[in-house]
Amino acid sequence: MPENGLGKESDITLNSISLQVRRKPGRSAGFFYAFFLIHHVRKLMQAVEIIRRKRDGLSNSSQEIRFLVSGAIQGHIPAYQLSAWLMAVFLHGMDEVETTALTEALIHSGQVLDFSRLPGVRVDKHSTGGVGDKTSLVIAPLVASAGVYVPMVSGRGLGHTGGTLDKLESIPGFRTNLSLDEFRDTVSQYGLALIGQTQEVAPADRMLYAIRDVTATVESIPLIVASIVSKKVAEGVDGLVLDVKTGHGAFMKRLSDSERLAQALVATCRKMNKKVVAVISDMSQPLGRMIGNALEVREAIDTLKGDGPEDLTYLCLELSAHMLMMGKRIEDVEEARSLARKQLESGAALEKFQQLVEIQGGNPRVVEQDDLLPKSKALFEYRAELPGYLQEARAGLLGQAAMRLGAGRECIDSEINHAVGLQLMKKIGDRISPRECLVRVYYDDERRLKEALEVLAQAYTIGEQE
Amino acid sequence: MPENGLGKESDITLNSISLQVRRKPGRSAGFFYAFFLIHHVRKLMQAVEIIRRKRDGLSNSSQEIRFLVSGAIQGHIPAYQLSAWLMAVFLHGMDEVETTALTEALIHSGQVLDFSRLPGVRVDKHSTGGVGDKTSLVIAPLVASAGVYVPMVSGRGLGHTGGTLDKLESIPGFRTNLSLDEFRDTVSQYGLALIGQTQEVAPADRMLYAIRDVTATVESIPLIVASIVSKKVAEGVDGLVLDVKTGHGAFMKRLSDSERLAQALVATCRKMNKKVVAVISDMSQPLGRMIGNALEVREAIDTLKGDGPEDLTYLCLELSAHMLMMGKRIEDVEEARSLARKQLESGAALEKFQQLVEIQGGNPRVVEQDDLLPKSKALFEYRAELPGYLQEARAGLLGQAAMRLGAGRECIDSEINHAVGLQLMKKIGDRISPRECLVRVYYDDERRLKEALEVLAQAYTIGEQE
Repeated sequence: MPENGLGKESDITLNSISLQVRRKPGRSAGFFYAFFLIHHVRKLMQAVEIIRRKRDGLSNSSQEIRFLVSGAIQGHIPAYQLSAWLMAVFLHGMDEVETTALTEALIHSGQVLDFSRLPGVRVDKHSTGGVGDKTSLVIAPLVASAGVYVPMVSGRGLGHTGGTLDKLESIPGFRTNLSLDEFRDTVSQYGLALIGQTQEVAPADRMLYAIRDVTATVESIPLIVASIVSKKVAEGVDGLVLDVKTGHGAFMKRLSDSERLAQALVATCRKMNKKVVAVISDMSQPLGRMIGNALEVREAIDTLKGDGPEDLTYLCLELSAHMLMMGKRIEDVEEARSLARKQLESGAALEKFQQLVEIQGGNPRVVEQDDLLPKSKALFEYRAELPGYLQEARAGLLGQAAMRLGAGRECIDSEINHAVGLQLMKKIGDRISPRECLVRVYYDDERRLKEALEVLAQAYTIGEQE
Repeated sequence: MPENGLGKESDITLNSISLQVRRKPGRSAGFFYAFFLIHHVRKLMQAVEIIRRKRDGLSNSSQEIRFLVSGAIQGHIPAYQLSAWLMAVFLHGMDEVETTALTEALIHSGQVLDFSRLPGVRVDKHSTGGVGDKTSLVIAPLVASAGVYVPMVSGRGLGHTGGTLDKLESIPGFRTNLSLDEFRDTVSQYGLALIGQTQEVAPADRMLYAIRDVTATVESIPLIVASIVSKKVAEGVDGLVLDVKTGHGAFMKRLSDSERLAQALVATCRKMNKKVVAVISDMSQPLGRMIGNALEVREAIDTLKGDGPEDLTYLCLELSAHMLMMGKRIEDVEEARSLARKQLESGAALEKFQQLVEIQGGNPRVVEQDDLLPKSKALFEYRAELPGYLQEARAGLLGQAAMRLGAGRECIDSEINHAVGLQLMKKIGDRISPRECLVRVYYDDERRLKEALEVLAQAYTIGEQE
């Protein structure tokens, strides 16, 4: 007798998954039910073999991967089989052929946007997520202002990382939920649009990500690569600039992991015949000085005006230069850098930003009138106890402090408060006088301020060394 | 922006699993919905941390394992989280503490039978599954006839292995689906009963096994151990004799794996304060000469009459001796062996079998009247092409051939044909004359015979060496 033969003969309901295949069909149920059942059992069994191969450290064929992804979308492959496979992938990895097959299967699970009748090149940027990273808000209009199409699909924040959509939505009236047709039209007519992921594009990626999120299978390089690249290819870009973050506030804490991720992303983009460049950028301390949605929009506008913090301005120009090289077919990086600088200094980038806000329903006067953005009720100055030099300003913890204030989501259902956040008065290497202010905390709620201060207390290291 | 932030904000239906946590609650939905949601999200997130620990090769605490199992039963932990955890367990293993914790959690997921007011010891036997293994049909009445209680919960066949319940059901009228109360009463009054697993005993084991079955996570020693031991402990035994099969027709093909499984089973039984002995027995060729349900019942009756094949009789006496040692508190194994032999030779075991058939609704005259058992329509004699000595009679393939005839289940919903099967005319080492019959094939259907013969063609090796 097999170990648990008896489990096989009855109908078990597993938390709303009815394992119907376990029930003997009533004789009266007829041929169609029996046919359905056999068909269903066969799909389940084929999936078991695919899982078994990956479990045993073998490679899955492209056909097997397509079978899983299309079965997931069509509802033949249940989530519990997908999650077992995802865990086996997490622990055994995937080779380049498998990663490419998964990427292609995800792309073809939905619509692929076709911008090929546009007269120019389409480029986009993707960041692996950081704290205070408002580069998209600067880069998209800057690059578009030079005549390159930027169809940008962005994300929301979760945990200590912020999301471009949340930031844009702090501008009163700004709509990020354009339909796919509106998106296409806006990009064609104005050269850019910024929206969230839609149901139509790479739906299997959304499904797999939803499962990964609750089964501890997120941090897998091949799965991350397939997820990112599939969405970008499906949104119809010709080229992609990747900003892979590294350090305390990044998804990848170690440089070597960030490099591996960057290499895998580049390899898979190339397989998809896309131009690609990866930049690895520091996320040991936050980018710029502002963390929090409206605060970051303000800093992005300052940067577009030429008054942004040095690190943010530098990274925006660098990423823009690479996008311009692809978009304008510029060979020389110096030439691309000076074009990027020109677009910023001439005010063309700012003007494009203003146009973007207007076409997506926001108030374009936000560029001149600071007070159109939401403001917090109160301000607290967090001060250093002792003097010295700032050694560490841990991005992950600063992001968490902002999240505690309400600037980010602790879980998926958290409401965002666009007004609150942090203004970093000191960056690593700065000299700190006794009792000098390290951070301005913009807050609405005393209890949340208290929570944020507890996190802040661990974020900074001040030492005597310069 | 995180890799797939956009996947986080909408309601995704994954093949009848609604990831409700992804939907923002309507403000009108009220406090209770919000509370439910937060509660639900928290359970999901706790489960993610438990999966993550196992994924990273760490140990799960007993509390964590209890949380998963009770959450599974209560419906808080969805199957897709359980399957990810099971795959991580499959690939990283579990230590003794974890295996014990899982076993205990499975036991306490349902009713634990209490036979403690009975005046004697309760023992049971568990086999890891083989081909032609009808030992339970001989052992249970033999041991019970000596005054030891045998509350036996058995399984059904799947794939090439047979199941005790299917064999018993080939006796017209025999009921294996006694209720738990009937089971308790029958054991108390007659000293034995043979039933299938019930809904009330170790329901979490059924649930986990159902998931393992379709996610390629069956063949994991700690998971097998927890499954077997939990069911046996929950059925209220004091002692357990384990028959761990090894060889071609066994679950574990290699002796070293069978030994590891036996050791793990023994260790976990001891942690549960149960007496335990493990016997490793050969399954490179089938046990006895009959494969198929009614055929095996006939062979079991022959064995109870003292006319059984040598290998089957030997194993039955050996396993019975160990059960008698536990049940009668006999110290000396030789003494137990001769008691077992006495029960067989005196006819007491056969008489107990007849009583068992009668109390569970079958026709007790089956013991004398062969023709009360179902018979196949036709017989085919499968013959050797060349003479020599039988080198191999691969149990796995012989089991498969019987399954093709209809004696076993290809998938869970297959109907069993109790009449069909194989009678092995030769065992390993036997001399084969030219064109001598190797197997008598009892069949009902020409198409199925053809399929079975194709498998049989690969099952035998005949060589010149003695």
